[in-house]
Amino acid sequence: MGVRVMGVDPGSYRMGYGLVEEGASLTATAWGTIEAKKSLPVEARLSHIYTEMTQLLDRWQPQEVAVEDPFVGANHRSILALGQAQGVVLLAAAQRKLPVSRYSPAQVKRAVADYGGATKERLEELVRIALRLDTPIESNDAADALAVALCHLYQRRLAQVLARQASPGA
Amino acid sequence: MGVRVMGVDPGSYRMGYGLVEEGASLTATAWGTIEAKKSLPVEARLSHIYTEMTQLLDRWQPQEVAVEDPFVGANHRSILALGQAQGVVLLAAAQRKLPVSRYSPAQVKRAVADYGGATKERLEELVRIALRLDTPIESNDAADALAVALCHLYQRRLAQVLARQASPGA
Repeated sequence: MGVRVMGVDPGSYRMGYGLVEEGASLTATAWGTIEAKKSLPVEARLSHIYTEMTQLLDRWQPQEVAVEDPFVGANHRSILALGQAQGVVLLAAAQRKLPVSRYSPAQVKRAVADYGGATKERLEELVRIALRLDTPIESNDAADALAVALCHLYQRRLAQVLARQASPGA
Repeated sequence: MGVRVMGVDPGSYRMGYGLVEEGASLTATAWGTIEAKKSLPVEARLSHIYTEMTQLLDRWQPQEVAVEDPFVGANHRSILALGQAQGVVLLAAAQRKLPVSRYSPAQVKRAVADYGGATKERLEELVRIALRLDTPIESNDAADALAVALCHLYQRRLAQVLARQASPGA
């Protein structure tokens, strides 16, 4: 049986999520966006995100979680807001004993698009090709989240190959 | 009856907390540090901090929470780590419907020390004077957290004075 990964593109107003399962091929099981009202104070938005995220984890039962980090040039305010949003996702994962991996936006782009300069549109297209989705992924955040899950599954395969090479008798 | 404020100096390895109650005078009810093992992955540390913080909130029943922000010149990694730690504190407060205020390190220093350049030692001394504590506050993080609670209570008083001036008939 394959592994099911929850990819997350954190944000405190909109948080993308995407579940990818590795069987004979890679399959997108579910994806979408958690939205929090802009008019709410930050702590209420985080509480909403946490509640929705725990429900998604309990519903879809991923075995691993992959979360995107803020990009290196982000400003103080953005990094802080993304950190807060990441915090409640990491908490929800830890409370379910799910291993968490984190990837930079550059790592995600390189994994899915083979180079770091791909546009949002190109990335979404490549995610659809990898997951054989016929219709566009409507939300950028959900497409990003699926890309994070794919990035994690590629890293995981690579790690398995390297482990096999290191101990050929196993 | 006065208000009880929980001040928090967030960090993902060490998080200071301090409860200050405003009655006839300002009283420090409790203070200390939540520590998380450096060897743990970040999500496990956040889970530990969240558990301890919820226990403290339920034990001491503050009506308001005041949290320190990262300082403006902090680097990407520090802001992200502090944001994650803040996230779980804000979540714990929101789940208890406690109003949260956030203050910059400069605001906290100005409120307690009247100028922004005070050293850690001087700040700790001024916190002790304001709260009439005879013995040193052993942890810097706890002293900072008490300073954040004081900063919030001073801001609160100021807001009350201004509100009274704006509507003298009330």
